[in-house]
Amino acid sequence: MTKNVAVAPDTRPAMHKMMCAAVERSGALLTNVEDAEGLIWADPARPELFPEIAEKANNLQWIQLPYAGIEPFAHHLNSKWFWTCGKGVYAPAVAETVLALALSLSKNLHNYARETEWSGPVGSYLQGANVTILGGGGITVELLPLLAPFNCTTTVIRNKPVELPAASFTYTSERFEEVLEKTDLLILALALTNETSGIINEKVFDLLPTHSFLVNVARGGHIVTDDLVEALEKGKIAGAALDVTDPEPLPAGHPLWSISRCLITPHIGNTPEMGLKLLDPFIEENCRRFVNGEKLLAPVDVELGY
Amino acid sequence: MTKNVAVAPDTRPAMHKMMCAAVERSGALLTNVEDAEGLIWADPARPELFPEIAEKANNLQWIQLPYAGIEPFAHHLNSKWFWTCGKGVYAPAVAETVLALALSLSKNLHNYARETEWSGPVGSYLQGANVTILGGGGITVELLPLLAPFNCTTTVIRNKPVELPAASFTYTSERFEEVLEKTDLLILALALTNETSGIINEKVFDLLPTHSFLVNVARGGHIVTDDLVEALEKGKIAGAALDVTDPEPLPAGHPLWSISRCLITPHIGNTPEMGLKLLDPFIEENCRRFVNGEKLLAPVDVELGY
Repeated sequence: MTKNVAVAPDTRPAMHKMMCAAVERSGALLTNVEDAEGLIWADPARPELFPEIAEKANNLQWIQLPYAGIEPFAHHLNSKWFWTCGKGVYAPAVAETVLALALSLSKNLHNYARETEWSGPVGSYLQGANVTILGGGGITVELLPLLAPFNCTTTVIRNKPVELPAASFTYTSERFEEVLEKTDLLILALALTNETSGIINEKVFDLLPTHSFLVNVARGGHIVTDDLVEALEKGKIAGAALDVTDPEPLPAGHPLWSISRCLITPHIGNTPEMGLKLLDPFIEENCRRFVNGEKLLAPVDVELGY
Repeated sequence: MTKNVAVAPDTRPAMHKMMCAAVERSGALLTNVEDAEGLIWADPARPELFPEIAEKANNLQWIQLPYAGIEPFAHHLNSKWFWTCGKGVYAPAVAETVLALALSLSKNLHNYARETEWSGPVGSYLQGANVTILGGGGITVELLPLLAPFNCTTTVIRNKPVELPAASFTYTSERFEEVLEKTDLLILALALTNETSGIINEKVFDLLPTHSFLVNVARGGHIVTDDLVEALEKGKIAGAALDVTDPEPLPAGHPLWSISRCLITPHIGNTPEMGLKLLDPFIEENCRRFVNGEKLLAPVDVELGY
């Protein structure tokens, strides 16, 4: 007894091919959408194709979305089906990027990279810093061990009142503002929801110390971009590294491109080549679990939207 | 019974003042050079003043040099006195800089910092990389724990046949060339001596994989600069981050400034503010040991020159 699993759409050939192979390796039967009990969604950039494809599937029980950030699919979520996503899959890659961005800010590498002559030595230690991390998901879980040798005081702010043992402190969101004035490095690694959209705004920048750094690897929409521009221009914070922006892609000529305190990377947390490599064994494993009636990895809470 | 310790020269006021205070806290008697049994050298940039000052000291037993890299004093070394230096003191700061530079190369941050518009995501993982470190001193000892969560295979090449327990492998210098073809990241953290001057040259670049990165936080003289320029221009290696250069400071207009694969930082491993803070308790401790006839920290091997 196996399960029928379809992979759609086929608009992204490399991803489609990889996912089909993963389904076949898992022991599931690769079928068309009409016969599918499971559907692996194979193009994160084409959520608009979802309704017409899902409509064809009469026996659908499970939908696997490819990425961790599923906002483009949020309005399609329903409790008719069991939804899983890619959360946690890319987390080790993104956690590395967080540390890279944080160290780049600390050591002023973003500015040195732009120099064409020898200048003076500036830069601070990450060692012993107070690090506040918004979000208690996969990225944070992978990031905490990378930070461990730096003896930082790590404060994780998350919705669930569940402590992360690797963090110095775990607080729920009510205590977010309270920790800001002691924060040397603020890391955004949370899901984008109605509650978290624009959570980093003028008020936050006014509470953060002027020597503090901000790293965003979550979603651009967490930050009120105009407030960030003002904060960087006025020196309310010492610097920001943004792997995600609002708008994204950040248009050429946007003020953030010319602010020296700012480092922008074009959503490199998980590069395409690496993403597929990480996703491949994950899709196989979730299909295998689906076939065997085991608990699926990375379930989406339809009500919370992530 | 105490010991007479002098601090000289006074050409660098902040360092001189800090060192005098550290001597006094240690229980030693702060004296002039003529009466000194111990001499704390207070200006790393003025080795040429050394002979005339040392000449005045008739009771000298011990000389403390301020930095880890003591090449400017190498021709003054003799076995008449016991020499100590700053090795190990700045190591935690420099180790952070090594990781910052390595991650910046891996994630292409040095190039993204120069962009003024959104580009494509590129970048590789440090996770699981083969890291070769030349030198088994303080920087390496501090760096290995920072690398530990990345599950790298770390190979330390050092002169002494003494294993570093935190490294995957410790080899003596004969095996240097043999490990190059499997090296993803080559880190220079060794002392500059006649043997190690120019150790990174055309032959090394020909053996390294084209995807490999080079980080130098030791001394510019370890690298044959023209060979590095050629290696970067021809793509023999994927990138280099240099916190030290030859010549140093690297003059404006030098080809390295305009090679995109290259990130140059102006000797930021240990910034002045941080350096004094790290040196302060170290000088106090070594003076205290001198007063009490205990074993001094960071002894220089006069024959080896470091």
